[in-house]
Amino acid sequence: MVKGFLAAGVAAGLKKNGQKDLGLILSETPATVAGIFTRNRVKAAPVLLDRERVRSGVCRAVIVNSGNANCCNGDKGMAAAVAMARSAAIEMGVPEEQVLVASTGVIGEPFPIDKVTAAAPKLVAALSADGFPDFATAIMTTDTVPKQVSVQGDIGGTPFTIMGTVKGSGMIRPDMATMLCFVVTDAGIDAGMLQDALVRANENAFNRISIDGDTSTNDTVLVMANGASGAVVSSPTHLDAFQKLLSGLLLTLAKMVVKDGEGATKCVEIALTGAPSEEDAFRLADTVAHSNLVKTALFGEDANWGRIMAALGRAGVAFDPDRVDIFFDDVQMVQNGMGCGKDAEQAASKVLKQPEFKIMINMNAGERAVSLLTCDFSIEYVKINADYRS
Amino acid sequence: MVKGFLAAGVAAGLKKNGQKDLGLILSETPATVAGIFTRNRVKAAPVLLDRERVRSGVCRAVIVNSGNANCCNGDKGMAAAVAMARSAAIEMGVPEEQVLVASTGVIGEPFPIDKVTAAAPKLVAALSADGFPDFATAIMTTDTVPKQVSVQGDIGGTPFTIMGTVKGSGMIRPDMATMLCFVVTDAGIDAGMLQDALVRANENAFNRISIDGDTSTNDTVLVMANGASGAVVSSPTHLDAFQKLLSGLLLTLAKMVVKDGEGATKCVEIALTGAPSEEDAFRLADTVAHSNLVKTALFGEDANWGRIMAALGRAGVAFDPDRVDIFFDDVQMVQNGMGCGKDAEQAASKVLKQPEFKIMINMNAGERAVSLLTCDFSIEYVKINADYRS
Repeated sequence: MVKGFLAAGVAAGLKKNGQKDLGLILSETPATVAGIFTRNRVKAAPVLLDRERVRSGVCRAVIVNSGNANCCNGDKGMAAAVAMARSAAIEMGVPEEQVLVASTGVIGEPFPIDKVTAAAPKLVAALSADGFPDFATAIMTTDTVPKQVSVQGDIGGTPFTIMGTVKGSGMIRPDMATMLCFVVTDAGIDAGMLQDALVRANENAFNRISIDGDTSTNDTVLVMANGASGAVVSSPTHLDAFQKLLSGLLLTLAKMVVKDGEGATKCVEIALTGAPSEEDAFRLADTVAHSNLVKTALFGEDANWGRIMAALGRAGVAFDPDRVDIFFDDVQMVQNGMGCGKDAEQAASKVLKQPEFKIMINMNAGERAVSLLTCDFSIEYVKINADYRS
Repeated sequence: MVKGFLAAGVAAGLKKNGQKDLGLILSETPATVAGIFTRNRVKAAPVLLDRERVRSGVCRAVIVNSGNANCCNGDKGMAAAVAMARSAAIEMGVPEEQVLVASTGVIGEPFPIDKVTAAAPKLVAALSADGFPDFATAIMTTDTVPKQVSVQGDIGGTPFTIMGTVKGSGMIRPDMATMLCFVVTDAGIDAGMLQDALVRANENAFNRISIDGDTSTNDTVLVMANGASGAVVSSPTHLDAFQKLLSGLLLTLAKMVVKDGEGATKCVEIALTGAPSEEDAFRLADTVAHSNLVKTALFGEDANWGRIMAALGRAGVAFDPDRVDIFFDDVQMVQNGMGCGKDAEQAASKVLKQPEFKIMINMNAGERAVSLLTCDFSIEYVKINADYRS
C-alpha cells in the first residue's frame, strides 16, 4: 500500500484478444514528479508530451495504454495523446496538464483514440487502492508476467513506501530499456531532488540491461511522490536513504525485465573488471552482452568462450588479448587469453545449466569495472518477434 | 580455368563427420599477393602470420583448414600455423615463407597440428587444375553450399581469368565479414597495385554485408596473381578494367555469403539515401541492417516499418523523423515519417514474400547514400548457433 495513490486497469479494446490494455494511476493530492525518456531520435507522441509536462514538477495522474505505441502518427498522434490525458482528467476532475500519458505497442498504426476516450469513465470508476495489479496487467505487451514490487523505508521513524511497476521485454538495451516504468511513493520529496535521484538510480538499473540491442521510441520512467505518508526527504541523510531504496527498487525491476526477456531462459550478469577506463569497460561488456553469437551459445548452454573473446575484440577498444581471464561463476575458462582445457569446460557446463549465473571478464589492464545484465537468445525470441503483429 | 594454379581439398580428420577439411592452392610460379585481414583485436595465429608474410608481395601457396580457428592458442597456436605452412611447403618444394595459412572453426580449442602434417602429403598429391571445387568444399563450416565464381577479362586482346572462392555464413558484419576469401588470377599485376585494388573492391563488397553483427578473429581475403595468362596490368586503363572485374567478383561473392547466411531465407538490400554525410548514411543503414527486431520481422514477412524507424532513431545520428520516406521495392510504406496505410501494407506484404528485395530509406536531409546487404533472422539461425559446438 502506497498512501494516497489509486490505480486501475481495464479493457478498452486496443488489444485484439480483449485483455486489459488501459491503465491509470491517480495521486489523491498533487505529487512531485520526475521522468526519464528514451534517447531514441524517433520519439512517440506521449514521450514528447510528457517531456514538456514533467517540467512543472507537479503531476496528479498517468494514463497508459498497451496495444499501440502512438508513434510516427504525426500531428494526429500528438492530438491523440493530448485527448487521452484530457479524457481521464475530465473524469477525475484534475487539471489536464497534470496528467501524463504513456503508450506501448506497435509503431505507426493510427491511434484508436475513440476507444480510449470511450473507456475513460469505466477506467476512472475502477480506481482503487487495490488497483495496482490490474494496472500492471494492463500495460503488458509481450511480457509473460506482470512486474510490480515495493520497498519500505522510514525517515525519522515515519515509514514510507516506494512501489514500482514495469513492463517491457523486447528491445531492451542500455541507454534505457524499452519499457515503461511507473514508480509511486508516499514519501515527500522536492521535484529537483527526485529527478536527480531517479537519474542516479536508473544509471545502474535500466541503463545496465540488455535483451536484444534495440531501443524503443516510447521508453519512459516516471516517479510520483505525494508525501501522504508524512515522511519528508529534507536532509542529505534522508536523501541517501531514499536514494538507496529507489536504486534498489529500480535494479530489482530491471532484473525482472531481463528475466522476462522475450524468449529468455537465462539471466546472466556480465561483470567486466580490470579495464583502463569506465568507457572502455562499458563498451567491452556491452559488446559481449549484445553479441548474438554469445547469446545463442548461452541458450545452447555451450561454454563457447571463444565467442566472448571475439566480441571483446570487436568492441573498438585496444587491449592485449593475452591478458584476458574469463570465469563462468567460479570456474576459470580462460587464463591469459587461452582456454583452461576440458576439465574447465566440463565444470562450466554445469554453471551454464543454471537459470542465473555470472560471466566475469578480467581485462587485467586497469581498475575500472562495469556490470551488465543480459539474457540468452532463444528460438522463442525469433518466433515472438516474427509473429508480433500478426 | 585460371592458368598456372592448382588446388586440392581432402579430409584430414579435423571435422568430426569425416568431411573435407583441409584445402590448398598452389601457383606454379611465384605470384604477387595482396591481403586484407580482420580488424578484430583478437586475431587468430594464421592472421598474425599472414600479415607478416604478405608484406613481401610474393606467394606460392595458401593452405587452409576448417574445423578449428587456431585462435586464442598462444605460442602453441603460432607454432602450429608455422608448422602447417611448412608441412605443405616441404611437400611442394617451395619456400615456406611463401606459403600462407588460414583457419576457420571453433576458437580456443588446441589445434590438431599432427592431423594436418599427417595429411600434407595426401593434400599435395591431390593438387590439380580441377581441384578448386574440392578446395571450396574443404573450407566450409556452417556454409550450406560451396561458393566459387570466376570472371573473364582481357588486356590488349589477351584474355585472363579471376576466380574467387569464399566461405563464411555466421558472424558477418561490415568491417569485414567473418569469412575466408581466396582469389586467384592469371593476370599479372604489381603487388602494390593489387593491394590497392583489393582494398577498393572490398570496400563495396565484404565491408557492406551483414548477417549477425559479430566479426571473427580469422577474417582473411587473399588475392594471388601469377601472370600465367600473359595479360599484364601495366597502365591506368588496364588497372581500371582489372579493378572493375575484381570489384564485381567480390560483390558477387559477398552476395553469395549473405544468401547463405546462417538460417537466412531472405537477402535484403538496405539502400539509404538523402543523408547529410557518408558517415551518417553508413551508421543509419548499418543500425537498420543489424537490428534483430528488423531482421526477425523480415523473417516473419511482416512489413513492420516502425522497427526501421526505431532503429534509425537509435543510430546516434541527428535527423528529423518527419522527413523520412521508406519504400519496400516500389511500395512506399512511410511518407514524412508516417505510415502510408493499409493498402501500402498489403502491397508490401507481397514484396516481403520474395527471397530478395530492397528497402529504400530516404532521410531527405542531404546527398549521401550507402547500400548494405543483410539477411533475415530465423529460428534456424538460433538452432545453428546454439548447437554449433555440440
